[in-house]
Amino acid sequence: MAQQLLRKVITLQRKKRLLPENTSLLVAFSGGMDSVALTLALIELKDFFKLKRLALAHINHGIREESDRDEEFAVEFAKRKGLEIFVERLKIKKMAQESKENLEALARELRYKALRSIKDREGFDLIATAHHLNDLVETIILWLVRGSGLEGLTGFDEKLEDLVRPLYWVTKEEIRAFVLSRKESWVEDSTNYDIRYARNRIRHRVVPELKHINPHLEASFLRLRNILKEENAFIHQQTLMALEKCVEGQALRRKELKSLHPAIQRRLLSIWLGIKDFRKIEQALCLIDKGGSIYLGEGKVLKSEGAYLYLQRTEC
Amino acid sequence: MAQQLLRKVITLQRKKRLLPENTSLLVAFSGGMDSVALTLALIELKDFFKLKRLALAHINHGIREESDRDEEFAVEFAKRKGLEIFVERLKIKKMAQESKENLEALARELRYKALRSIKDREGFDLIATAHHLNDLVETIILWLVRGSGLEGLTGFDEKLEDLVRPLYWVTKEEIRAFVLSRKESWVEDSTNYDIRYARNRIRHRVVPELKHINPHLEASFLRLRNILKEENAFIHQQTLMALEKCVEGQALRRKELKSLHPAIQRRLLSIWLGIKDFRKIEQALCLIDKGGSIYLGEGKVLKSEGAYLYLQRTEC
Repeated sequence: MAQQLLRKVITLQRKKRLLPENTSLLVAFSGGMDSVALTLALIELKDFFKLKRLALAHINHGIREESDRDEEFAVEFAKRKGLEIFVERLKIKKMAQESKENLEALARELRYKALRSIKDREGFDLIATAHHLNDLVETIILWLVRGSGLEGLTGFDEKLEDLVRPLYWVTKEEIRAFVLSRKESWVEDSTNYDIRYARNRIRHRVVPELKHINPHLEASFLRLRNILKEENAFIHQQTLMALEKCVEGQALRRKELKSLHPAIQRRLLSIWLGIKDFRKIEQALCLIDKGGSIYLGEGKVLKSEGAYLYLQRTEC
Repeated sequence: MAQQLLRKVITLQRKKRLLPENTSLLVAFSGGMDSVALTLALIELKDFFKLKRLALAHINHGIREESDRDEEFAVEFAKRKGLEIFVERLKIKKMAQESKENLEALARELRYKALRSIKDREGFDLIATAHHLNDLVETIILWLVRGSGLEGLTGFDEKLEDLVRPLYWVTKEEIRAFVLSRKESWVEDSTNYDIRYARNRIRHRVVPELKHINPHLEASFLRLRNILKEENAFIHQQTLMALEKCVEGQALRRKELKSLHPAIQRRLLSIWLGIKDFRKIEQALCLIDKGGSIYLGEGKVLKSEGAYLYLQRTEC
C-alpha cells in the first residue's frame, strides 16, 4: 500500500503532465499528514520530476492555539530535510466574530493569496497542494448537498492555473501508509475532529457509510467526476458558441434565444448575466417567451421587449 | 404542513400534466404510509383530476412474514374507502438464495410486471406509484455512490411511459403529516429498518447527516436534478445527431468520430455498442485513434481498421 502513493503520483504525472521539466515548485506545507506525504514524495521523486527547486511555504493562520506549534514543526521539518521554507503569518483572529464556516472560507482565500505572493516574490513557477482523492469525494458531496449544478459536481482539478495537486489520485489510506512507512510524524489539525464543520461531518459520518455500500467509493467518484467534467466542458463550449450567435451589442436576440435547447438557454443567461442564483435564472428564462422585466439586484434590471433582452440600470 | 401535500400534488399536475382528463388510474398500494397518502390524496382530488376510475393494486411478494398481514390491510382499506382492489401474489420466496439486494431488485421488477399486467387486463390507462421527493434524494445518492454517470444522477421521473408519481414534489415529512391529519393508519415495512440494505443506510444514516448541512436538502436535490436532466437531454440529443453522421451501414467512420468532442465520443460509443461498462468504453475510445481490436464479451469483438470501427462475431 505504501508504494501505491508513489506509483499513482508517477502515473498522474505521466498522463497529465502536471509539472514541466525544470519547475521551481513551492509546496503548501501545513505540517498535516497530507502535506508531509506530498513533500516526502516530491523529495523522493525529485529526479523523476526533474525539479529545479523545491521549497515549502507554511501559512500560520493564527486561528488556533496550535498554530505556533504547527509552525515550529514545519520549520524543523524543512531544516531536517534540507529544504527552504517561507513562513507567512495571517491575522484572521480579529475576524473571529464570523461564523466558523465563513472563517474557514476566509482562511482558505487568504491562504491562497499568501501562497501566491510568496510564489511571485520568490520566483517559483507553481504551487503544489496536498489535495487528494478523499478531498475530492468530500468536495463533490459538499457541493451536491448545497445544491450546485453540474459544475460544482466536478470538484477541483489536478492542475489549474498555477496550482498542481500531485496526490490527486491518492487516497487518505495510501497517504497514511506512505507516511508511516517513512517513519515520519505530522501535526494533527484539531478542526479535523470538529464535527460542526460540514466537511468534517461528511468525512467522519457520511463517507464511512457510503463506503459500506461501495468500498471503491473514491475510484467511482473519480471516474464519475472525469465524465461530468468532460460533459460540462462540452455544454460550456456549446453555450459560448450559442452566446456568440445571440449577442447583438449589449443585448440578446430573443428569437435566437428561443430556438436554443432549454439547457443552453439556462447556461447562456447565467454566463451573460454573471449570476448563479437559480431563482433569478428561472425568472430570466420566463422573460424570453413572455417579455416584461425583473430586478436582478445591485441596481440592475433585465428587460425583455420587442426583439431583445437587455440590462438597464435603475435609479432607485 | 398537512395541506402542503395536496397543494404540491395540485401544482405538479398543473405544471406537468401528469394525468389527462378521464384517466382510469391504478394505484400501486403496498399499504405503507406513502401509498396510503397517495390514495387519500387521489380520493380527495378525484374531481380536480377528473378521474374516470380509481382502483388499487396490491402485490403480495410473499417474501416477508408480514406479507399476508399487509394484504389484509390493503383489502380492508379498499373496502372502507369503497375502492376496487386487485391483489396479485408473487412467488419470490423460492429464489431466496439470492442476496438481499438482488432479491429487492428482482421483487421490484416482478412488481412492475404484475402491476402492468393488471393494468392491461383490467383496462386502466396509467399506474400511479407513491414515490416522493425523499425517494428521489435517496436514489440519486445511491447512483452517485455506485458510480453512475450523469444519467443515474437524474434519478427517476415524475411521469414515464405508463407510470405517474403524483407525490414527486412531496417530502416524507409532509406525507406523514398528511396521513396523521386524516387519522389514517398504515402498515410498517419491516425492511425499512434493516440497515443492511444500501437504501436504508442512506435513508437512516446518510440523509440525516446531510440535512444538518442543508435543511432544504430535498428542494436542492430536486433543483439539481431538473438541471441535470435538461443538460443530460441536451447531450443525448447532440449524441444522436453525431451518431447519425458517423454511421455507415454496420460501421462507424473513424474520421468523423475523431472530430467529435470527447464527451460525445464516449456517449456515442456507449449507445452504439449498447454497453455501459466504463472500462470497456475507455478501451473502445482508444481504438478510435490507435486502431486494433478489443473483446467486448458475449462473442463480440470491436475492430478499428482503415477508415472504420466495426463489430465482429468471434468463433471462440
